[in-house]
Amino acid sequence: MASNLIILDEYLESRKTLVDQALELYMPAESTEPPVIFRSARYSVFAGGKRLRPILCIGAAEAVGGPIDAVMPAACALEFIHTYSLIHDDLPAMDNDDTRRGKPTSHKVFGEAVAILAGDALLTDAFRLIAGRTPVGAVKAETLLQVIQEVALAAGWFGMVGGQVVDIESEGKAPEEKTLNFIHTRKTGALITVSLRAGALLGGADADALDALTEYGRHAGLAFQIADDILNVEGDAKALGKGTGSDRSRGKLTYPALVGVETSKRVAAELVEKAVEDLRPLDERAEPLRMIARFIVERKI
Amino acid sequence: MASNLIILDEYLESRKTLVDQALELYMPAESTEPPVIFRSARYSVFAGGKRLRPILCIGAAEAVGGPIDAVMPAACALEFIHTYSLIHDDLPAMDNDDTRRGKPTSHKVFGEAVAILAGDALLTDAFRLIAGRTPVGAVKAETLLQVIQEVALAAGWFGMVGGQVVDIESEGKAPEEKTLNFIHTRKTGALITVSLRAGALLGGADADALDALTEYGRHAGLAFQIADDILNVEGDAKALGKGTGSDRSRGKLTYPALVGVETSKRVAAELVEKAVEDLRPLDERAEPLRMIARFIVERKI
Repeated sequence: MASNLIILDEYLESRKTLVDQALELYMPAESTEPPVIFRSARYSVFAGGKRLRPILCIGAAEAVGGPIDAVMPAACALEFIHTYSLIHDDLPAMDNDDTRRGKPTSHKVFGEAVAILAGDALLTDAFRLIAGRTPVGAVKAETLLQVIQEVALAAGWFGMVGGQVVDIESEGKAPEEKTLNFIHTRKTGALITVSLRAGALLGGADADALDALTEYGRHAGLAFQIADDILNVEGDAKALGKGTGSDRSRGKLTYPALVGVETSKRVAAELVEKAVEDLRPLDERAEPLRMIARFIVERKI
Repeated sequence: MASNLIILDEYLESRKTLVDQALELYMPAESTEPPVIFRSARYSVFAGGKRLRPILCIGAAEAVGGPIDAVMPAACALEFIHTYSLIHDDLPAMDNDDTRRGKPTSHKVFGEAVAILAGDALLTDAFRLIAGRTPVGAVKAETLLQVIQEVALAAGWFGMVGGQVVDIESEGKAPEEKTLNFIHTRKTGALITVSLRAGALLGGADADALDALTEYGRHAGLAFQIADDILNVEGDAKALGKGTGSDRSRGKLTYPALVGVETSKRVAAELVEKAVEDLRPLDERAEPLRMIARFIVERKI
């Protein structure tokens, strides 16, 4: 297990470096006119994210033998969408968070107007990346269109945005498992699942591999969100870069609030096992994804 | 001229009806879960817009002999993007407008959080529409990818969002023509120009026709924005559905503020003539676009 963790660390670090290099390539320089929109977007994109979604996207492509360069624009587009969602979620009208990853949130640094527009621009540019930066010939145009459609569905009103709406509406209300599952499946689950599907599709997965990676995404995504909820209750505030207990004080609907921390941990562990099981049809090239799933419940940040 | 206006009215009315029917088809019902995101999005999409961008998109396709159904998802996507930009522009952190087209703005009805999310969802779903709803076989997949890329560029940080950032930053500052041109070209011009390019590309335009329609879009788009500025100064508040003189009281950079109303009118008229001239390579199927250009400086709302 210890050596597996070292291998996983190396994998995550190397893929994160590739993603950061690609993000640098795709993002306009801070000196581009008008400068503040690029400065603010870069501030949030390079604020210390783990690049989980891009790495899952790359991992899925690699798991089916696809080349990394064909999947990199879509992987970075998913990070753009994730970053935009954090900027908008942190706004005073939403979660009203002053810090994220130990740094002041976008609207605290650049003001609300620029923060809203930085999010809008990142969301918009995500689709330019997939449509315009995927290497010509590496992927069929029809496949790219399918990826764009699936990413938009996962990020939009039936996915991430829909989950965020219900998350906000449910604050301070009596916890219900049905509502919580709705929020988790959409708010974080949909984008994580589509990260795997996009990687699989762009990597040339056959139908069985695509199904396996989709199911892996569903289970690992939910496990990730439950682990996040648990960390919010008992994590170390300094390591997380944000206050702990913030969900409870806000009356947020979470797994620990609904079923308690111990049951939440058991459910997360079961989901991780399911995610690993989902990858049974895939060979050793899927090993990084198996390790990532196991890492989810052990992560400290 | 009188009979031309009647013909134009018929054209605008018939195409607007087609667009409204398609929007109804593409928008989820209000009863879909979670209801408030769809209720709020529908509220703004069906708030009485003229559908100028979809009609220009359809008009460009028709001008080169393309079928309407191939262009309709892109036309509606442009209306989604236009609507999202209005919802976000009206927010308290931006222009802080309480009414639009005579109705309370989205955040006044649904609250700021839902208004932000409704805008996010409409922007996201615009790309799903183009990628996923354009009839298979009507357009080459590569063409659709080009349209998606161009729409994202026009709506994003190099286009509409970039223009809005500079618009907000320039409020209350000494007017400069360079800055005003930057704002107008990007904030409204880019989306209008890409409406014509998308229609032309999806309608199967050759390179000359694409160039002609692009130039038409540049000139007509700028004329439209100047006419909008003039209306803000001297239009009838009731007909416009918003207060007049609001730009000046906010210290907004506008053409009338920079060069006066009379010179603004002359510049707009010259741009209209250029736009009509741009269409010289096209035959009588471009007549609606010629009439629309002339209509821009005569419009009362």
